Amino acid sequence: MAATQPAITGPANAAAPRGFPMNAWYAAAWSHEIKRELTARTICNKDIVLYRRTDGQAAALEDACWHRLVPLSLGRLKGDDVQCGYHGIEFNSEGRCTFMPAQKTINPSACVRAFPVIERHRMVWVWPGDPALADPAKMPDFHWNDGTEWVGEGGTFYSLKCDYRLVIDNLMDLTHETYVHAGSIGHDAIVDVPFEVTYTDRVVTVTRWMKNIEAPPFWARQLGRDGNVDRWQIIRCEVPHIVVGDVGVAPAGTGAPEGDRSQGVNGAFLAAITPESETTCHYHWNFVRLFHRDDEELTRKIQSAHVSNGKGVYDEDVVFLEAQQRAIGRHPRQPFYNLNIDAGPMWCRRLIEKMIAEESPRPTLQAAE
Amino acid sequence: MAATQPAITGPANAAAPRGFPMNAWYAAAWSHEIKRELTARTICNKDIVLYRRTDGQAAALEDACWHRLVPLSLGRLKGDDVQCGYHGIEFNSEGRCTFMPAQKTINPSACVRAFPVIERHRMVWVWPGDPALADPAKMPDFHWNDGTEWVGEGGTFYSLKCDYRLVIDNLMDLTHETYVHAGSIGHDAIVDVPFEVTYTDRVVTVTRWMKNIEAPPFWARQLGRDGNVDRWQIIRCEVPHIVVGDVGVAPAGTGAPEGDRSQGVNGAFLAAITPESETTCHYHWNFVRLFHRDDEELTRKIQSAHVSNGKGVYDEDVVFLEAQQRAIGRHPRQPFYNLNIDAGPMWCRRLIEKMIAEESPRPTLQAAE
Amino acid sequence: MAATQPAITGPANAAAPRGFPMNAWYAAAWSHEIKRELTARTICNKDIVLYRRTDGQAAALEDACWHRLVPLSLGRLKGDDVQCGYHGIEFNSEGRCTFMPAQKTINPSACVRAFPVIERHRMVWVWPGDPALADPAKMPDFHWNDGTEWVGEGGTFYSLKCDYRLVIDNLMDLTHETYVHAGSIGHDAIVDVPFEVTYTDRVVTVTRWMKNIEAPPFWARQLGRDGNVDRWQIIRCEVPHIVVGDVGVAPAGTGAPEGDRSQGVNGAFLAAITPESETTCHYHWNFVRLFHRDDEELTRKIQSAHVSNGKGVYDEDVVFLEAQQRAIGRHPRQPFYNLNIDAGPMWCRRLIEKMIAEESPRPTLQAAE
Repeated sequence: MAATQPAITGPANAAAPRGFPMNAWYAAAWSHEIKRELTARTICNKDIVLYRRTDGQAAALEDACWHRLVPLSLGRLKGDDVQCGYHGIEFNSEGRCTFMPAQKTINPSACVRAFPVIERHRMVWVWPGDPALADPAKMPDFHWNDGTEWVGEGGTFYSLKCDYRLVIDNLMDLTHETYVHAGSIGHDAIVDVPFEVTYTDRVVTVTRWMKNIEAPPFWARQLGRDGNVDRWQIIRCEVPHIVVGDVGVAPAGTGAPEGDRSQGVNGAFLAAITPESETTCHYHWNFVRLFHRDDEELTRKIQSAHVSNGKGVYDEDVVFLEAQQRAIGRHPRQPFYNLNIDAGPMWCRRLIEKMIAEESPRPTLQAAE
Repeated sequence: MAATQPAITGPANAAAPRGFPMNAWYAAAWSHEIKRELTARTICNKDIVLYRRTDGQAAALEDACWHRLVPLSLGRLKGDDVQCGYHGIEFNSEGRCTFMPAQKTINPSACVRAFPVIERHRMVWVWPGDPALADPAKMPDFHWNDGTEWVGEGGTFYSLKCDYRLVIDNLMDLTHETYVHAGSIGHDAIVDVPFEVTYTDRVVTVTRWMKNIEAPPFWARQLGRDGNVDRWQIIRCEVPHIVVGDVGVAPAGTGAPEGDRSQGVNGAFLAAITPESETTCHYHWNFVRLFHRDDEELTRKIQSAHVSNGKGVYDEDVVFLEAQQRAIGRHPRQPFYNLNIDAGPMWCRRLIEKMIAEESPRPTLQAAE
Repeated sequence: MAATQPAITGPANAAAPRGFPMNAWYAAAWSHEIKRELTARTICNKDIVLYRRTDGQAAALEDACWHRLVPLSLGRLKGDDVQCGYHGIEFNSEGRCTFMPAQKTINPSACVRAFPVIERHRMVWVWPGDPALADPAKMPDFHWNDGTEWVGEGGTFYSLKCDYRLVIDNLMDLTHETYVHAGSIGHDAIVDVPFEVTYTDRVVTVTRWMKNIEAPPFWARQLGRDGNVDRWQIIRCEVPHIVVGDVGVAPAGTGAPEGDRSQGVNGAFLAAITPESETTCHYHWNFVRLFHRDDEELTRKIQSAHVSNGKGVYDEDVVFLEAQQRAIGRHPRQPFYNLNIDAGPMWCRRLIEKMIAEESPRPTLQAAE
């Protein structure tokens, strides 16, 4: 297949460095979105057609026919193969051509790229980079989303008009809740209380404990008890694109900071922010919980508190994220200025940059050979 | 006029070679569209204003006032002259300035470009290239459209969002009927039966005879007889932009392949696919016939079978043509891969490229001088 | 503040020279538009947020937070300071940072650019260039608009899609009235009668006296007397962006050309055409008068005669201005060709070019040092 695989290239704007690694598993769709039909989606600038084979497995092919580039997603599913809607050329789920019209011999080089696919945690993940490096062991941890222990229903902002890293900045520094979400989940304590940042090669964690504070209204209701609480926000980013925020409250002094959350209520916000292009992304989100797990009305309420015709808290973020992207487009300025609150986002960006750098050819080394 | 005539230049994107020759007669409008009023149209990246003079002749001027570039099409027709709507400057149908406001002496260099025009076969044709080369003998043959022998009513897709050559590809290989038009005119025989390609300097012909096959429903109705038929598709492209498809059926074995079509029914699809820009075109189409010539309801039925609020067979093609153009814009890849079925389109592209190459300056020769 | 002030740079398209000087007072808004709230406006490619301080003074800051470029206009006014809506960073009306979230020490370099502001003649003016050069003495004369002696109500075409100089061309040559406004204020005399152009370093004046002519309908009504008139149009452009047209009629032979307008009626059209970008502008307009000053219905009638759902005389101009800009974009051609009628516009352009040239660095001089 090598001959027809396009090189892993940078952004359309060659002057700017690519903003995402190619060799990573990216959330491409919710499992329920991929059926016995063709679904087009662009991931890391790759146009991809997704579908489910007769054995139920998800498949992902380059969404451009080998012959004349017509999107295969305009075609038909024939068993496990995709038939181009224009001239009937067929490709199997490995991308190999299995039929050409009006000729018996198939050009042996005819194929489209097939992307490695894994389905896990209620999502379909693709690897847009070098297939030889697509190691299942590199799948990010997103088990909170699998619908077993934790309960919740989320959604997706498709083609959100911002660099996916702006969303990571947003989630890895919750200071913004005080200002953007002043009317709902904001709390001065988030700004006042110090936080701790730790990191490994792939994971950055921001930990903030607000001890013995008045419970915010949402959490007070879930806890169902009066009195002060210990509140935690432990946000984990597994670069390049997964953020999980372990959040909750427990009655003050019942040992939550030391590890005993048995008296508290615990939720988690989940985000898989998949780059679509350099300046757009698909922001898959969910909010899951361990409390009142059978309360379906609560599930719906939490879902619509996050996204609801422009009035949810994530809708409020979207206004800022897209405005920020437009401003970056108008005023390119490197680097961003950083505040203390940016330690989490900053480490995420560093780890991402390192992943990207590891993928890049090293011209000086080659020149020396 | 030479001083004010812009050089014949390439596309906005200097990196890509121009996709159309300039020195050719191009269908600019249907005759009935050009009246005693100003009509703007862009042909081969030239903004042109078309109108009919008092003697009934069609005229074509550069649609940008010499003075300050305001489109003349925003102005008024005064006799045979065009008056700019902004400052009243007037130009005759040769493009020469005949009036300037508030001054008696007219700047002798003031003019706009006049394009050679021929009206023939119910269409107005312009020559966007060097007027000195505009030879009426180079008019393409489009006599099927003149309303005398052959009968039919067509239409135009204005500013269709694709390179005109994608439409030629489409019409010169009818294999796509089997897939794009599976619900109507498609037929497996089109894919199964071999075809023959011949060509001269300017004309490519693809000939396919499907002998002794079951008649497709449309043709069976027109023939009004049971039994197998010999079906023909003889498609002729006169580069750069005219395609005529001689199509029909005759009762099997009555001699049609050998030249006796007297027992059959014969129609022709006509296309004048005029480049508007590198990535858009005006696709003038018609379907004419020699059978049931007085049946006006049949004329209307055939017209709406081709184009009808997105449901006609040509509407089905448009979806693929525009998707293909978008894909080309996203994934520039040279050259296209070809199948056996592409022999016709491929020869058309070669003849077009040769026309373009003949227009281009030869830098190496100049360097040698 | 120097460290964070962006250099005064040219247009996005580096190939084209900038079309406006930066060191000038530009009308940014009507006084009544600027309140105790944040208003975003782009002037000379600078994104600016405007507001009124508690002491009533207008302030203008760079509309991009120092931290991460989020538009400050999405934030809140807190007293005299602006709070960024994303992370709560605050800036005072001089652009200095006065609060950072979650840290006590403020980065001393943290600031946004503050633009010099003057409020005068019912408008708020900003100086987008070097603040050190912002001399109030350089304010253009726009006293006709101040609501004391002259009476009238105008409006603004925001983000009009043309280079502001095309509007100056339009107003400095009223020949176009005969063609664009043939149905209303046009008059053949405007084309037939010669005019005089004078200029200084900053002001171009076009003077046209049409003596002993039939009064145009509008002016005849205002004069309330039969008989021929002496009509004047004395148009004054104070570069780069202010045009004032002193217009009126007096009974023929009563001495108006010699300076005695006591028998006549006198109005003035006012224009502050502020560049938004290289190809868009905010066109603030007004028509004021010295006659029937208490007639509020006349004020409304005159206003809607100029702009009224696409049917006013300025609406007619807009069609040409935007079409001209589109044509310039498609057919870049330097220089424009000029007619005699262009003497006024041409001198305005020359003075503007001189202002721009005076702002540019002189590379040869630097090289010599």
